[in-house]
Formats: sequence, C-alpha cells, structure tokens
Amino acid sequence: MKIEQITNEIQSQQADGAWITTPLNIFYFTGYLSDPHERLLALLIKENGDQVLFCPQLEVEEVKASPFPGEVIGYLDTENALAKYPMNINKLLVEAAHLTLSRQRELIEAFNVQTFGDIDQTIKDLRNVKDASEIEKIKKACALADKCIELGVSFLKEGVTEREVVNHIEYEIKAYGVNEMSFDTMVLFGDHAASPHGTPGDRQLQKDEFVLFDLGVIYENYCSDMTRTVKFGTPHAQAQEIYDVVLKAEQAAIAAIKPGVTIKDVDDIARNIIAEAGYGDYFPHRLGHGLGLEEHEYQDVSSSNTNQFVPGMVVTVEPGIYVPGVAGVRIEDDILVTEHGNESLTGYEK
Amino acid sequence: MKIEQITNEIQSQQADGAWITTPLNIFYFTGYLSDPHERLLALLIKENGDQVLFCPQLEVEEVKASPFPGEVIGYLDTENALAKYPMNINKLLVEAAHLTLSRQRELIEAFNVQTFGDIDQTIKDLRNVKDASEIEKIKKACALADKCIELGVSFLKEGVTEREVVNHIEYEIKAYGVNEMSFDTMVLFGDHAASPHGTPGDRQLQKDEFVLFDLGVIYENYCSDMTRTVKFGTPHAQAQEIYDVVLKAEQAAIAAIKPGVTIKDVDDIARNIIAEAGYGDYFPHRLGHGLGLEEHEYQDVSSSNTNQFVPGMVVTVEPGIYVPGVAGVRIEDDILVTEHGNESLTGYEK
Repeated sequence: MKIEQITNEIQSQQADGAWITTPLNIFYFTGYLSDPHERLLALLIKENGDQVLFCPQLEVEEVKASPFPGEVIGYLDTENALAKYPMNINKLLVEAAHLTLSRQRELIEAFNVQTFGDIDQTIKDLRNVKDASEIEKIKKACALADKCIELGVSFLKEGVTEREVVNHIEYEIKAYGVNEMSFDTMVLFGDHAASPHGTPGDRQLQKDEFVLFDLGVIYENYCSDMTRTVKFGTPHAQAQEIYDVVLKAEQAAIAAIKPGVTIKDVDDIARNIIAEAGYGDYFPHRLGHGLGLEEHEYQDVSSSNTNQFVPGMVVTVEPGIYVPGVAGVRIEDDILVTEHGNESLTGYEK
Repeated sequence: MKIEQITNEIQSQQADGAWITTPLNIFYFTGYLSDPHERLLALLIKENGDQVLFCPQLEVEEVKASPFPGEVIGYLDTENALAKYPMNINKLLVEAAHLTLSRQRELIEAFNVQTFGDIDQTIKDLRNVKDASEIEKIKKACALADKCIELGVSFLKEGVTEREVVNHIEYEIKAYGVNEMSFDTMVLFGDHAASPHGTPGDRQLQKDEFVLFDLGVIYENYCSDMTRTVKFGTPHAQAQEIYDVVLKAEQAAIAAIKPGVTIKDVDDIARNIIAEAGYGDYFPHRLGHGLGLEEHEYQDVSSSNTNQFVPGMVVTVEPGIYVPGVAGVRIEDDILVTEHGNESLTGYEK
C-alpha cells in the first residue's frame, strides 16, 4: 500500500526507481530501523515495486530477521556498496532534502543516472496521515509523557535543581519500559523559562515559581512531545496572567482543529489571543509541528501553512510567552485529527 | 588560524566563500553549538575572512553571547533566511557530504551561485589534528568513560539484567557532571555479545560469563568511546581464548601507532593476529575510527586507508571476535598520536 504510492509516483514522473536514504523513511517502508552513522543505508524501490536494501554487512542478519521482503545487499567498509549491484538508471527519484551532493555523485557514477526527480513530498504526504497502528504507538508515548510530568511534579521541593528533576524523571520512567526520550528533557524554573531554548542547570527551585517541563518519550519508535508549566506555590501576578493567556490561546487553538480547517488559521487564533493580551512580541515561534517517528516532522503549524487538517494527522499545539526577567510559560499538547474534530493524546492537567 | 585555512582554500579554488552547515563544524569554527533540527543554520566564511551566521531568530541572543565574532542573521520560521542577506556569489565552496540537493537549490536561487566546489577535505584535515584544548577535553571524556566501566563492573551480580546495568551507569555518572553519553550505552552478557550491534535487554547475568561494555561520554562537546569485556566468574575456555586473541591483537596494533606509520598497516597487524588464531571470519569491521566532536569521525582505521598517522590525531583501536552461540569479545581504547608514539587516553584494566 505504502510501496504502491511510491511506484505510482515513479510512474507519474516517468522514472525508473526511487532511492530512499533517510533512516526513518527506510523504517517507515521496511520495518527495519538502523542508524548507519556515516555509512550508506539506502532503499531502492523499482518501478515494478521490487525493493533492494543496501546496508553494512554487519546488519545483514538483522535485516533478514526483519519484516523487509526484498533483496539485501551487504557491503564491507572496504567495499563500494553500489558497485555490488550494477545497473543503469535513466531517471531516479531521490529525497532532495536528505540526499547530499556526495551521495548524488556516487549514484551518477555507479548507475549512470541521467536525471533526478524528487520523492520527498510523496513520502511526506504518506507519513502525514498516521494509520491505526501508528496512532496506538503515539498514544502510548503520550501516556508515558503524562507519567513523566507526574514524576517530575511529585519530585518538586524547595532547593531541588533543574538537573536533578530531569535526572529523576529520566531514571524513573525507565521502569515503565522507556529507553529513550524524544529529545533532551527540559525543566526550567521561574524566569529561567523565559529563554525558549534554555538548558536545565544548577538553578534551585524557590517558593512561588512556575516550573516548565518540556519532554517526550519514544515508544516503539514513535514520539511524544508535551509541555506543562506548573505552579510551585503562588507565582507573582504577572506570571499568573501570562499563564492564563497562554492557556486560553492553547485551548482556543485546539478547539478549532478539525478536518478541512486551514492550518494557518489555527496558528492565527492562538497568536491573536496572545497579541490582544499585549504579549504578541513575546511569542516568537510557530504554534506547533507534526509528530510521529520524529518529534518534529511535517507539517508546520504556522502562519504560513495554507494546507488543511486531515484525519490521521498528529500535531503539537504549543503557544508560549517568554518575557525576559519576568516569566516563561508554554503549554503543549499532542492532538490527533479525527474524522469530525480532534482528540488530545496528552492529558496531564493544566 | 582555523578560519585562515578556510580562506586559503577559498582563494586556492578561486571561490568567493565557503558555506558550512554541519552543526559540529559550525561549532568547531565559531564556538556556538546548536542543533537546528529541520531549520537552516549556516556559517558563511567570505574570501576576506568575514563571517556571517544564519540562525533561527530564537537563537540570536545565544549566538551574541557566544565567542562568535561575525555578523548574525536571525530569521523567523515564516521568513526566507537567505533573502535577508542579499548577495551574488559566483563560486561557493560547500560541504558536499552534508549539503542536500534542496539546500543547494536554495543557494542557487538566493545568491545566483554559478558553480560549487568542496570544502569537506579542508575541514576534515583541520579536525583530524586536535589542539591542546581539544585533547584536554577528550582526556576528560576518556577518564569519565573509565569511571563508567568501574561503575558498571561494581554493579554486576547474578540475575542483574543488561538494561539495569546500563541504567545504573548512566544514572550514577551524572553525579560526575555528565549530561550525555556519546551513544547508547551497550552492556551485553555472554554470547549475547556475539552480535556486534546488539541491544541491551532483559537477559540476566549468569555465573562464569563475559560482560561486554561499550560506552562513552560527552565532555564539553568532546566524546570518548571505549569497550571492555570483563570476566564475571570464570568464562569457558573458548571464550577465554577469544579474549586472549583480541587483547593480543589490540595491544600489538596500539604498539605500532606513531607518526609516519600508514594507517592500514595497523589494521593489518590486528587482523593478521586474529586470522592466524583462526578467527579471521569473525572480525567483520574496521579496526577503529577517529574520535573528537563525534564518536565516529574522520578518519577510518581500516585496511583501505593509506594515510599516515600524524601527531594530534585521536583514534579508537577496537578489534573484536564474534562467534555466534559461543562468545563476543571486543576491547577498545582511545589513542592519542604524540610526537614520537602514542598515549592511551582510556585506562581501565584489561
């Protein structure tokens, strides 16, 4: 089914095959996941749907044990992988956003490729709509992210450092089977959260501050990504006001998400609420992004995206207001677009 | 000094500038480290040495607080970054191994670039030779890796699982200031280690097995990468024999490393010892690799590398023998090439 979409595109562009090299895209099509580091890992899909996977010799047995049904070409570090599968290709579709100039030269040399076309958008469109099995995994990843917030909140006490809270969450969540976070867990106290890309450090928690948690886990290769900004005591009035504006913006944006709605309009809803409250200059990023095999993936939830929501999309909604020296608040949920509306996959109270 | 090597190369290729987009290369030249995810982060070095950094608007303040001396062009997600700095470039040097076809198209469109050249090898040659400050950081990362092995070994007991040992190491090492491992820590028991890319799981430690640890830490952005295969009790005779062969191969290879020696000859030394012992087919990977800002970097220590060792290089030496159902043994140290020989930066007993 997925492969068929690729062969349709190959035929529509009058090409001979598609050359896929992004590890997560290879996993998406084959069920085989590997990080080849600097080595070559590539999936060739031919016009007739036949598949060939090029991988380091070390991985051949693992590929053969995976669901991948095609031919496997293993190569040693001392060998030229492409030379092990001689062929002539007139037109080849490639991932223009992933293929490097060096790899392109190797393809021209090995396969005498005459012209290249793009397969990027076809794969993006496929991955944009999650199937039932993908949604189940993302739901699980979201439930585990909720658990992480719970672990973090229960560990808050005066004097604890940001880094200690991070370590506690990441250690305790392993007992729930989590081996990897989606990204470096962020825990920031008080006005330290006013840097939207801040790094947890030795700052100690004081009474009456907000604590910002931004974290996610990977469950069977699918990611969650959520943010909560939680009161520890009674933060000062302006911090609370900022929190209330962000929450209002987030809830209004989520309420608007359903199939057929234009993505930029949802960004506008949140942005307008924040601007009307006088904080427009302090919300410097897009409203959200796609979520799935990557914690940031196609597509942007931003003021420039004129695409529409469709059922099966999963996106983050994460408005924030960052006022240096005063407070930083962000609230983020992972939203599944359903047939008639949406469902929030993250649920920790806000 | 580093920038001068780049401007020399720009002049030698009669180009107008160099466009650097690998985050670690940007850090290498600027001292500013950022993972831009899908966003653009690029350093332009002009023929006269002037530098311009293109980065997301969110990061502008952090760049300004960094050692970077050049101009900073911040852009919003909704803006075209390159359009904010109009210029015409006839010939541009790029990282062919990093620049994608999409990014190349953007450069052609924005700057009317007529031809491209490569800057890759110049940067590789620079990073290949570590300066005193880099060596200090790698030494510290290696000492912390030694500490990780010590933490892991002291935690071994019958019935403990591989994953529990991994968790223990990664949690305890944080108390030493380590925030990030170089890669996923590998702890494998007995014949489970016979898969050179195995994943730690629920296997429980039994009496009289070998335990393989492969791990490294990141210290101030520099990596270590070491492997020890440690006895728990008295492993069976063939496992011990394999261990002895690997150790002999590793020690002989290390002893041969000094400036002027051809890299492939060192791979040969280890490979021949293993082949003579009858295990040639069970050592399926290169002897080692460069180490620095990345846990795997230029250059390969392999049978096809005819370059010579030079002072300031840091490489791993990591022969291994993997006999399915019997045992897997690898021993790996991080070796600094000195003026007249070498120094092992990892020191845990073997």
